[in-house]
Amino acid sequence: MNNFDFHNPTKIVFGADTVGKLSTLVPNDARVLILFGGASAEKTGTMAEVRTALGERTVREFGGIEPNPSYETLMRAVHVVREEKIDFLLAVGGGSVIDGTKFVAAAALYDGEPWEIAQQGGANVQRALPFGSVLTLPATGSEMNNGGVVTHKATQSKLAFRSALLFPAFSILDPRKTFTLPTNQVANGLVDAFVHTTEQYLTYPVNAKVQDRFAEGLLQTLVEIAPQAVATPDDYETRANLMWTATLALNGLIGAGVPQDWATHMIGHELTALYDIDHARTLALVLPALLDVQREQKRGKLLQFGERVWGITDGTDDERIDAAIARTRAFFEGLGIPTRLSAYQLGEEAVEAVLKQLQTHGMTALGEHRDIDLARSRKILQAAL
Amino acid sequence: MNNFDFHNPTKIVFGADTVGKLSTLVPNDARVLILFGGASAEKTGTMAEVRTALGERTVREFGGIEPNPSYETLMRAVHVVREEKIDFLLAVGGGSVIDGTKFVAAAALYDGEPWEIAQQGGANVQRALPFGSVLTLPATGSEMNNGGVVTHKATQSKLAFRSALLFPAFSILDPRKTFTLPTNQVANGLVDAFVHTTEQYLTYPVNAKVQDRFAEGLLQTLVEIAPQAVATPDDYETRANLMWTATLALNGLIGAGVPQDWATHMIGHELTALYDIDHARTLALVLPALLDVQREQKRGKLLQFGERVWGITDGTDDERIDAAIARTRAFFEGLGIPTRLSAYQLGEEAVEAVLKQLQTHGMTALGEHRDIDLARSRKILQAAL
Repeated sequence: MNNFDFHNPTKIVFGADTVGKLSTLVPNDARVLILFGGASAEKTGTMAEVRTALGERTVREFGGIEPNPSYETLMRAVHVVREEKIDFLLAVGGGSVIDGTKFVAAAALYDGEPWEIAQQGGANVQRALPFGSVLTLPATGSEMNNGGVVTHKATQSKLAFRSALLFPAFSILDPRKTFTLPTNQVANGLVDAFVHTTEQYLTYPVNAKVQDRFAEGLLQTLVEIAPQAVATPDDYETRANLMWTATLALNGLIGAGVPQDWATHMIGHELTALYDIDHARTLALVLPALLDVQREQKRGKLLQFGERVWGITDGTDDERIDAAIARTRAFFEGLGIPTRLSAYQLGEEAVEAVLKQLQTHGMTALGEHRDIDLARSRKILQAAL
Repeated sequence: MNNFDFHNPTKIVFGADTVGKLSTLVPNDARVLILFGGASAEKTGTMAEVRTALGERTVREFGGIEPNPSYETLMRAVHVVREEKIDFLLAVGGGSVIDGTKFVAAAALYDGEPWEIAQQGGANVQRALPFGSVLTLPATGSEMNNGGVVTHKATQSKLAFRSALLFPAFSILDPRKTFTLPTNQVANGLVDAFVHTTEQYLTYPVNAKVQDRFAEGLLQTLVEIAPQAVATPDDYETRANLMWTATLALNGLIGAGVPQDWATHMIGHELTALYDIDHARTLALVLPALLDVQREQKRGKLLQFGERVWGITDGTDDERIDAAIARTRAFFEGLGIPTRLSAYQLGEEAVEAVLKQLQTHGMTALGEHRDIDLARSRKILQAAL
């Protein structure tokens, strides 16, 4: 096991009908900005619940945070924060809204051009506004971690940032809030949580038994609940398991003391920035191809993954690895999520375009061994054609 | 899954040679009281490392905190805190020292007779001194939770308390610090962590899949590492797995959203208070007997436990439950830890003495169904004869 620090101060309030607890979670004298995405938060009644719970507090609202939140949009929110002397942010939505809120929390108090926060990955964050979240879409884990991703539309750059100052003070997770989600967003969430887990698990063994058992437990759960999660929107128990699994997939716990990969995410970010493909869908494109190309480096863990997650015990090592990758691919495809670039009418030209962006963003030594250079990324993208 | 709140702000610093990080974890201007147990902290060099890391800070020391720390001893520490205007406590030791430090942290700032904190289970804690820990004995999980147990020698009372104000600010977990532990303490730690997990797992199913997978992962790991953990003291990897597993067994995570039992602990506490049997050893006495007596109430989970932890799939339901309990008993006995009261020369008279104490302490409705009354506790104790 590697040495590690683990610190996650976010308070989770989990369960049915918990939005009302905002009344005690948000400071009484706070000047609150509610940040949200599209019309659904209003339509489903969540915004009304939130407003009621906030009671007499001074509240402003900022809607229109898009999927893959843009710097351009978020800077308008920063402007509101400064104009209205906001001192508490409340994200109501999914990972994009929470990521965006984190950026606003840091940018509002940043001296200088806030895009530098993304450019330096958050290392330059010295202060941030406190914030909480009401999660409506289980997927990214942003509700219980200190990271986010922001897109600069003008330069087609999608960059990640993190800071110890950017944990939500609290997150409310009410599985009932997921009942109204479109099926494709639930499917995306399943894939997102699955790949978050594999990024911290499918590397090389360091004898971290509990981290391995926990990661396998998350993957087994996602595989087990997926059919019901997409078929029956109002199955509370299934949605509760999905919500808590997605949170635990990226709250720092399973990644503590083990090597981590994240190449799938870095390559996927470029596909989103260039072609506006949903984040989770880019992960489904990259992961199976990456596992195939990196099979030597990941051999031990791929065999363990095959046995413990997919129950694959027959065949040679390579046959078992092939089977594990095939099952992973089939899992994504079974959720209606393509694993081939051709499904998006993308071909060799996309490979070259992504490589160019990876180079621009310095993503030339990815993966747990830092051995995924541009040549290896080309192989991976070609394996995803 | 049940509704839950989960909040654990303790920072974990894990790994080889991490004690030196105290230099940045403890505030520079702190007036520190180091609390420790017997002579081993000094003999092993840990105290010297701690003193070096604390550098120029004002430091006082308080040794002699005994296993099952007593109110009487801890009140002497409270006196030192008040006399010396201490504003930061540092526990160096195992669960007893950390539990004791929690009590001191609350008692030093308590208006009134501090034993009331134990009597009210911590509900009356309004303020507490900040504190951290350097863990030397993996077992209780106190290093990452907000609870403790304190014993009033005069009345043979062992009472638990907890408060949101009693999380350690940080805990340093260096597996090398366990190399010098006596074998029986390592065995105790394995049993303690095992039973902490079963108290939160062997109840009744509420479809909390991840909590179940995590609990099973902890139990599987303990069973897997136990032989090596006791046989080879300086096997870093094994001790690292033991240390992190014991912490995760009682940091609130696997108990979030599921029913909890804790009857084994409550009955065990009386055995410690009356007969001075090590805490973990009392758990080994009570658990197998309790599982047998409560087999109807725990049927579903006992079958799941048998299959997923012990690989038992053959036989009728009752045969499989019998086998799961037998394997648990054999696991404890294999570590040199008895599961029968007779091993301590205790008989029917002990049963009656424990029942009397349970009654005195109001422990008359224990377990996840609150159905373990004194008659049921008698059955359990008799099954442990």
